[in-house]
Amino acid sequence: MARQSLDPGLGEKLSGNLRRVINNDGSYNVVRTNVPLSAFTPYTYLISTTWGRFFSIIAIGFIVINLVFALIYLLCGLENLHGVEPPTSMNPLLSTFYFSIHTFTTVGYGNISPSGILTNAVTIVEIFIGLLYVALITGLLYGRFSRPTARLVYSKNMLITPHNGGRALMFRVANLRDNIMMELSAEVLCMIKTEDNNKPTRRYMKMELERNTVVMLPTSWTLVHRINEDSPMFNLSIPELKQMEFQVIIMIKGFDDTFSQTVHSRFSYTADDIVEGGRFVISYFTREDGMIEFDMERVHEFDRVELP
Amino acid sequence: MARQSLDPGLGEKLSGNLRRVINNDGSYNVVRTNVPLSAFTPYTYLISTTWGRFFSIIAIGFIVINLVFALIYLLCGLENLHGVEPPTSMNPLLSTFYFSIHTFTTVGYGNISPSGILTNAVTIVEIFIGLLYVALITGLLYGRFSRPTARLVYSKNMLITPHNGGRALMFRVANLRDNIMMELSAEVLCMIKTEDNNKPTRRYMKMELERNTVVMLPTSWTLVHRINEDSPMFNLSIPELKQMEFQVIIMIKGFDDTFSQTVHSRFSYTADDIVEGGRFVISYFTREDGMIEFDMERVHEFDRVELP
Amino acid sequence: MARQSLDPGLGEKLSGNLRRVINNDGSYNVVRTNVPLSAFTPYTYLISTTWGRFFSIIAIGFIVINLVFALIYLLCGLENLHGVEPPTSMNPLLSTFYFSIHTFTTVGYGNISPSGILTNAVTIVEIFIGLLYVALITGLLYGRFSRPTARLVYSKNMLITPHNGGRALMFRVANLRDNIMMELSAEVLCMIKTEDNNKPTRRYMKMELERNTVVMLPTSWTLVHRINEDSPMFNLSIPELKQMEFQVIIMIKGFDDTFSQTVHSRFSYTADDIVEGGRFVISYFTREDGMIEFDMERVHEFDRVELP
Amino acid sequence: MARQSLDPGLGEKLSGNLRRVINNDGSYNVVRTNVPLSAFTPYTYLISTTWGRFFSIIAIGFIVINLVFALIYLLCGLENLHGVEPPTSMNPLLSTFYFSIHTFTTVGYGNISPSGILTNAVTIVEIFIGLLYVALITGLLYGRFSRPTARLVYSKNMLITPHNGGRALMFRVANLRDNIMMELSAEVLCMIKTEDNNKPTRRYMKMELERNTVVMLPTSWTLVHRINEDSPMFNLSIPELKQMEFQVIIMIKGFDDTFSQTVHSRFSYTADDIVEGGRFVISYFTREDGMIEFDMERVHEFDRVELP
Repeated sequence: MARQSLDPGLGEKLSGNLRRVINNDGSYNVVRTNVPLSAFTPYTYLISTTWGRFFSIIAIGFIVINLVFALIYLLCGLENLHGVEPPTSMNPLLSTFYFSIHTFTTVGYGNISPSGILTNAVTIVEIFIGLLYVALITGLLYGRFSRPTARLVYSKNMLITPHNGGRALMFRVANLRDNIMMELSAEVLCMIKTEDNNKPTRRYMKMELERNTVVMLPTSWTLVHRINEDSPMFNLSIPELKQMEFQVIIMIKGFDDTFSQTVHSRFSYTADDIVEGGRFVISYFTREDGMIEFDMERVHEFDRVELP
Repeated sequence: MARQSLDPGLGEKLSGNLRRVINNDGSYNVVRTNVPLSAFTPYTYLISTTWGRFFSIIAIGFIVINLVFALIYLLCGLENLHGVEPPTSMNPLLSTFYFSIHTFTTVGYGNISPSGILTNAVTIVEIFIGLLYVALITGLLYGRFSRPTARLVYSKNMLITPHNGGRALMFRVANLRDNIMMELSAEVLCMIKTEDNNKPTRRYMKMELERNTVVMLPTSWTLVHRINEDSPMFNLSIPELKQMEFQVIIMIKGFDDTFSQTVHSRFSYTADDIVEGGRFVISYFTREDGMIEFDMERVHEFDRVELP
Repeated sequence: MARQSLDPGLGEKLSGNLRRVINNDGSYNVVRTNVPLSAFTPYTYLISTTWGRFFSIIAIGFIVINLVFALIYLLCGLENLHGVEPPTSMNPLLSTFYFSIHTFTTVGYGNISPSGILTNAVTIVEIFIGLLYVALITGLLYGRFSRPTARLVYSKNMLITPHNGGRALMFRVANLRDNIMMELSAEVLCMIKTEDNNKPTRRYMKMELERNTVVMLPTSWTLVHRINEDSPMFNLSIPELKQMEFQVIIMIKGFDDTFSQTVHSRFSYTADDIVEGGRFVISYFTREDGMIEFDMERVHEFDRVELP
Repeated sequence: MARQSLDPGLGEKLSGNLRRVINNDGSYNVVRTNVPLSAFTPYTYLISTTWGRFFSIIAIGFIVINLVFALIYLLCGLENLHGVEPPTSMNPLLSTFYFSIHTFTTVGYGNISPSGILTNAVTIVEIFIGLLYVALITGLLYGRFSRPTARLVYSKNMLITPHNGGRALMFRVANLRDNIMMELSAEVLCMIKTEDNNKPTRRYMKMELERNTVVMLPTSWTLVHRINEDSPMFNLSIPELKQMEFQVIIMIKGFDDTFSQTVHSRFSYTADDIVEGGRFVISYFTREDGMIEFDMERVHEFDRVELP
C-alpha cells in the first residue's frame, strides 16, 4: 500500500527500459497522444516556445496580415490611394503593401493616404487589427520575460560519503541566478525496478533527508540522505542499483524574492551518476574584506575518500 | 454537528430536485439575484467573457468614441480640417470620422490635418483618450491571456472496482494541457438527500481518499475512495444512491509550474455517472526509446470486472 | 501573557475612545506621522488612488511635459517648424504646443514638421519620453485593473441566536462579485476595554468559531461563535459590552479562482451592531429548473426569536 | 546535529572576520564567482538595476538601433527618401537618422517619406523592430514598478529589557509604506563563533520568540526573545557577544494586501547594535477623534531602564 502511494504519476507497469524520467530542463520524458485540439492554447505555446520560433511566428503573422490588406486595397482601386507611386516605378501590390504596413503599425507617413469611403473603411479595420496586434505582442513579450524560472544548478554527481559513522548519499544545489531565493524545501523519491507477483514493476519510494528545508540559499545547499536500514539503497551496490534501473527524482520548491513567486525545480539522477567514496569540497571562503566568496564551479567538485 | 460543518455553501434546505451542482467548466448552478450595481466590475467582465463578446465590446467602443469626436469636429467647422475632401465627394461626417480615427489611433497620415485653436484642442483630448484606450486594450488582452486555468480531464465515469478484497469508488484525472502541474491535492465531498426531523435535508459528507495528493501529474491520477463502513456509500446500491440524489463534488488544487500560479479545478458526478464493476485500463506504456507514451483518450476507458 | 499575544497591532494603551478600528472598505483608522519621504512610492500611490485623481495626475503630466517642449521649440525658432501657421492666425506657443503633442504621442500628422539639427534633436528626446509615458500609462492602467480585491458583503448585524440549547453570536458573509472564491478561512478577534493594575487597557481575545473554513462560497457563509464559558462575551449584556467598547475584528482570507490570487477581507463590528434574539433567514432556494437561486439582499435579513 | 541543521547557507567554516551578513537593503554580503554566462538574464538585470542604469541602457539601445538604420538608409541612397533636406543644409546621416527615428517610433511625420522597393523594405523591418522595442519598454517599466517589495523599518537597536522578572532581547518593526500587510511571521537565527574540535566554527541557532506571528501591522510590532536557559545569549555579556562575532539574522514574511503578494524582508543586527537596559517607548496614541496616531520616528526610541 505505502509503496503504491508514492507513484508520482510515472506509472508502475514495466514494459521496457525507461530513460531518465526528468530531463535537465525539468521537462518529463512523457509523450502525450490523442490530445484533443481544444487543449491547445496559443498563448501558452507562444509563451513557452523558443525565441526563434516566437519571432518567426509573429513576423510571419505581421507579413501575412499586411499582404491580405494589400490585396484588399488593390481590389478597392489604386486610384483611392493618393500619392502612390506610378505603377511603372513599382509593383502596385508592393505599393499597397507598404501603405498597409504604415496603416497597420500607425506609422502613417501620409506620403500615401486613403481616399474614398471604401478604402477609408478598410483602413479603419486594419488600424483596429493593428492595435490588437501591437497589444498582443506587448503582452506576449512581457509574458515571456516575466515567466518565473528557478534555475538551480545540481551537482553533476551524487556522492556516497562517510557520514556520522555510516554512509550517506549527498548532492548539492546552488542558485544559478542572482535573484534571492528563500524557504527552499526538497522532496526526493527513488524509482526501483522490482518484482510484484513475478511481474516486473516499478516501485517509488521516498528518500528521507536529514534536512529538507533551508531558509535562504546564498551559497550552496548539500542534501543528505542517510543510507541506513530505512533507506531504499541499504546494502545495495552500484551495479545492483544500475540493474534495478535506480533513479532519483528530486523536486525543490522555493520562493523567488525578486519576483515574489513560488518556483519549482525538478531533476533526476540515474545510478550512473553516483560516485562511491567522494566528499564535496567547500565551495566558499571568507575574504579579507569580510565578504563570503562563493565559487559556482566548485559545486560539482569533490575529493575521493575511503568509505567505512 | 459534523454533518453541518461540511456544507460547502450549497445549502441544506431541500425545496426541489437539484441538478448537477457544478458544471463541467467549473461554474456553479447558482443564480444570484438582487446583486447591487456596485458589484459590477467591468474589468472582471471583460476578462471573463467570451472572445466574441470581448471583441464586440471593444470594437463598438472604438466606433462610438470616434463617432462622437467626428460630430465634434463637424461642429468645430469643416474648414478647420485641412485637406479634407470636398463635401461633394464624401459625406462630411465620414470625413471627420476618418480624421478622428487617424487621430485617436495616432496613425496621423496628415492627409487631413487640424487647424485653428479649437479643432487642435479637440484633437489633443482625443489623442489622450486614444492613448488610454490602447493602453486599456493592451492590459485587457494580456489579462485575458494570462488568466490561469487548470484544465483537468475527469474520466467520464466513476467506477466501483474490486480493491484489496473490498470495493472502491475510483475516478481518474489528467492534465489536458501541456503545462506542468505539481503538488496536486484533492478534496471530495458527497451530497445525499436525507430526512432530518421528518424534513427532507441535504447532507454533505467527506469522501476519504486513499491518497489525496500527488507531487506531479505527467500522466493520469486515479483517485480511490474505499467503500468501507466509514464511507457514506456503504451498503447503498446505485438505485438507492440515485433516489438519494447522490452527487460527488470534487475540488482539485495544484501548482501550475508554467505560470507559477495555484490553480483550482472543480467537478461533480451524479449517481448516473457511476458504473458498477469496472476497472480503468492502463493509459500509458513505455516505448522502445524509453519514453513514456500517455494516451489521453484512454483516461475514460475501463474493462468490465466482477465485484466481490 | 495569552492576552498580550493577540494584539493585532492596534495597541493596548487606552487614551480615549476608539472609533471603529477597521472601516467598511478594509482600511484602518490609523494615521501615520513622521513617515520619511523615501517611503513614498509613486507607483503604489497611482495604483491605489481614486480614478478621478489618477486621470487628473496623468492628464496634468501630459499637459506640463508638452508645455515644456512647446517652450523649447519656441526657443529653437519657429522657422524650424515647417508648415506652422503664420503667427497672425495663432499664438506661436499654441502652434509649438500642438506640434509637441503630435510628436509626444507619435501621431505625427506631418502638417507641421521639424527642420534643422537642433529642433530635430529635441523631437527625438520628446519622442523617447513620449514612448516611456505611454508605456507607463499602459502599465498603470493594467496595474489598477488587475489589483485583486475581495469584495465580501458582511451582514449589517451580528445576531445573538439560540443555538444547540445555548446562545451563539452569528454573522454572515457573501461574495459581492461574480468571481469564484475557494478555500475561505476566517479569524475573529474581539477587543474589550478593561482594567490592568487600575490602568484602563484594551484586551484582544480570540473568538472561537464552530467552523472557520469553507471550501467554496457560492451562496453565503454563516460564521458561528458559541457564547459559552470560554467566550469573551459570556454573561455580558449588550449594554455592558457597549460600555467596554466591545469590537469584533474579522479577517477572512480566500482564494480568488478568477485571478488565481489570495485575497483578504477585513471588517469590524461594534456592540451597536449586535441584535439580541435574531435568526438569519435562509437566503437561497432551489428553483423548479434545479438551479439554486441566491438572493444577495437576504444576507442581511433576520427574524426575531426568543433567546433561552 | 541540531546545530548543523540551522546553517542558512552562510557556511560554518571560519576563515576570517565576517562582516554583517545581510545588508540593510536585504542583499547578502556574498560574492559569486565562476558564474556561467548562461545564468545572465537580461530581463532580471533590467528589472533589478537602478533607474539611472535602466534609462541609460534603453536610451543607448534606442540611439544605436537608429544609427544602424540611418546608415542603411544612406546606403540605400538619399534619393529614395523624398522630402529630405538638401545635403547642403544638413549632414545626410543626420537626415536619415531623423527619418529612422520617425519610422522606428511610428511617429511618421511624413515630411520625409520612403520611396523605392529597397528603402521601403528596410522601413518595414525597422517598424517591426520598433514595435518590439516599444513592447519591451512597456513590459520592463511595468515589471519594474510592479515588483513587490516589503519595506519594513527595523528599530536601530536591539534592547535588553526587563521582562516578566527576567530579561528579554527586543526589537521593533513597522511598515514603511502605506500598503496593508497581513499575516506576518518572523524567523530569527543567531550566528556565534565557537570552537569545534579546536577549529573555529560558526554556529547558527534559532532564537525563540514569544510570538512569531501577527495578523496585521497597522502600527509597530515588537519581537521579544526571552533570555532564559534555552537562549543562545544566556549568561553572555555584550563584550563576550562581540568577541563571538554574534549576529542576529531576521527573516520576516508577510502578505501585501495591496498587491496580493507574499513579500519577505531580511535584516541582521550585530552585537554593536545591542543596548543593555532599554525599553521601547509607545509609538502610538489615540487622538480625540478616536483615530490611532502612529509616529514612525518613535519606532527607534527607547528609555533607559535598570536591568534585574
